[in-house]
Amino acid sequence: MEPITFASIETAWKVLHPILPVTPLIRNEWLSKKYECDVYLKLEIAQPIGSFKIRGATHRISLLSEAEKKKGVIAASAGNHAQGVAWGARHFNTNALIVMPETAPLMKIQNTSALGATIHLEGENYDDSFQVALKIAKETGRTYIHAFHDPAVIAGQGTAGIEILQQLPDVDFVVGSMGGGGMLAGVGVAIKNSRPKAKVIGCQATNASSMVASLKKHKLTTTDFLGTFADGISVKAANPDLFKVLETVVDEVFSCEEEEIAMNVLQFMETAKIVVEGSGAVVLGALDRYVEQMHGKKVVLVVSGGNIDVNLVSRIIDRGLIRLGRRIHLKVQISDRPGSLSKLTSLIGALKANILQATHDRSDRAIKLDETEVELMLETRGPEHSAEVIDALEKHCKRVEMMD
Amino acid sequence: MEPITFASIETAWKVLHPILPVTPLIRNEWLSKKYECDVYLKLEIAQPIGSFKIRGATHRISLLSEAEKKKGVIAASAGNHAQGVAWGARHFNTNALIVMPETAPLMKIQNTSALGATIHLEGENYDDSFQVALKIAKETGRTYIHAFHDPAVIAGQGTAGIEILQQLPDVDFVVGSMGGGGMLAGVGVAIKNSRPKAKVIGCQATNASSMVASLKKHKLTTTDFLGTFADGISVKAANPDLFKVLETVVDEVFSCEEEEIAMNVLQFMETAKIVVEGSGAVVLGALDRYVEQMHGKKVVLVVSGGNIDVNLVSRIIDRGLIRLGRRIHLKVQISDRPGSLSKLTSLIGALKANILQATHDRSDRAIKLDETEVELMLETRGPEHSAEVIDALEKHCKRVEMMD
Repeated sequence: MEPITFASIETAWKVLHPILPVTPLIRNEWLSKKYECDVYLKLEIAQPIGSFKIRGATHRISLLSEAEKKKGVIAASAGNHAQGVAWGARHFNTNALIVMPETAPLMKIQNTSALGATIHLEGENYDDSFQVALKIAKETGRTYIHAFHDPAVIAGQGTAGIEILQQLPDVDFVVGSMGGGGMLAGVGVAIKNSRPKAKVIGCQATNASSMVASLKKHKLTTTDFLGTFADGISVKAANPDLFKVLETVVDEVFSCEEEEIAMNVLQFMETAKIVVEGSGAVVLGALDRYVEQMHGKKVVLVVSGGNIDVNLVSRIIDRGLIRLGRRIHLKVQISDRPGSLSKLTSLIGALKANILQATHDRSDRAIKLDETEVELMLETRGPEHSAEVIDALEKHCKRVEMMD
Repeated sequence: MEPITFASIETAWKVLHPILPVTPLIRNEWLSKKYECDVYLKLEIAQPIGSFKIRGATHRISLLSEAEKKKGVIAASAGNHAQGVAWGARHFNTNALIVMPETAPLMKIQNTSALGATIHLEGENYDDSFQVALKIAKETGRTYIHAFHDPAVIAGQGTAGIEILQQLPDVDFVVGSMGGGGMLAGVGVAIKNSRPKAKVIGCQATNASSMVASLKKHKLTTTDFLGTFADGISVKAANPDLFKVLETVVDEVFSCEEEEIAMNVLQFMETAKIVVEGSGAVVLGALDRYVEQMHGKKVVLVVSGGNIDVNLVSRIIDRGLIRLGRRIHLKVQISDRPGSLSKLTSLIGALKANILQATHDRSDRAIKLDETEVELMLETRGPEHSAEVIDALEKHCKRVEMMD
């Protein structure tokens, strides 16, 4: 692969600037106060497709010759790259064919075809679809647009770095997640060129962290790939060329467990009022890990995308509130006499907890004949209130069992 | 009340501009395409307190004399105004006392006291707390900061209008929600002064729509106050002074039912990747209602705030998905023979629907002895897929009953 130069990113910026919005860089007061530094969020969620992927794909497509445009482009992706290619192809009047696995969620298919791309469903997983796409590319002469292994794509993603430098010239830290690593490679080259003393920090999900492992050991390394709900960065193995570029620009790396990523999604909703997909939410983990180095410094978190299924958001909220002690899920046993359920619910009411769900079960064989069991989901005002509610229930009920 | 002039808003802007961020104005491509106009979102959710209320309160507090600052400020509010006053007081080195109803959610108390304000819990509802606050103000000499009935507060909110004019000088429509109406009064005066041909549209929740009714009838009107989950605009009666100002600047008004507001919250999450509270989400209703007038025009929706409880967000997602046909809640009756439940679940699996919840109930007396009932919550890919699933279940089961 050709080297990524600052000049190539500047060239990409000249192409993209008239087409794409400059995404906002917003200082977050709550996070800044909590971590005693200046935290800025680079909101790639504000791109027309809700993700930075539009930069690289559109820049790559802008370089096609008229002959190539006539033949069209192709890519394998069920994620943000698919929408990026579709958007870029529509803008530059060429035709995009996107190969997705047969199991691709309907929502992703709809969002991509709404941008004018043709969708071809084939393959059981991404690797299958990738092979299919390469084959079709060969047969049809369509140009394959790779999601990250392409200097023009990387230069396009790097334009986010140019914007950061314009918006906050004295930035000290830039934190970005890595799937293939194209975004952080481009952004890293831009940042290091103009402000070498700024630190670039990369992150991944622990379940898909071969690039983090490689950068830690300074050699290409494979790790167990378990897959992550942060689908945008669920990449099996570090690409050698991307590793080489990242090795020159990344100062620190870290990885997050699934549970932490989910809590980060929730924290972005509550503190910044934004919907961030798992692959973008990983970056928040940097604030805890580098709190000392970042003290008093200017920190940019690249919020790479917001394309997360709302079903998943609702599950993350539900689990997150339990973890934060703002929701409790428990089973209590009370005597099976008329009025005992009503006594229980009025006790909960007096404690000012909100009953979200109550299931009354008399059929469990483990329960004594003169007892009955109630499963409760309660909303509380926080850990202290939860403890107070549990305490009162323990005094009132025969047995209280926490469910989560 | 003194008249609201453009000059007073410009003066407020000179005070606030060095202190507060210019909130982003972002073009939303998805909404623009759907409604065939240019839809821009003015993101007041990006304010340090997540709401425009910081503008008015901070401007008002900036005008205090040193003697007044020594005595401190006071306000009654359990909402965004409380945080605005707390923030402004901290910035201008004065002390804020916030009176909240005893039932105020812990989260609101915490967020306000985290900004340095002292919280005084008294009163059963807002009106009670307001009376308490006035009494304390009299006794202590603290300056009462009203949420909207104050020219300095209105001028402060109007600075959002100045920013809109700078960011999009040829704006054609500005849509904003009205609680007391301070924000739209200020923004309306700013817009009408500089671009008289631009239309200003106001909106409320139907359950709290006395200002909409008053503006429609061109005279102060009372309506049944039912209260709305959009707590930021849950205001009982139109204030005569605010009505007078709004009457001079508002061209159109509309109101939304609770269900529509909830769906708007969900739509903002999915299409703009932002978390918007009910009082801010109302504005989205303008795009359907004025689709013809807005065709090809530049429309700004003021997204006034993002302070919504995530518990509520999770409930909105759950209900919204059912309404959009992406989740189905039903009861089916199957024969009570070994293996029949497993047959049912494998049928659902083959249909590629996801089982979120299943409750198996054999105790209902309405069910025949040789039958059993299963309540199911299923996640589908959309209305067509839901119809397909229901169709297959109807063929397989004795009876299928929709629950929502």
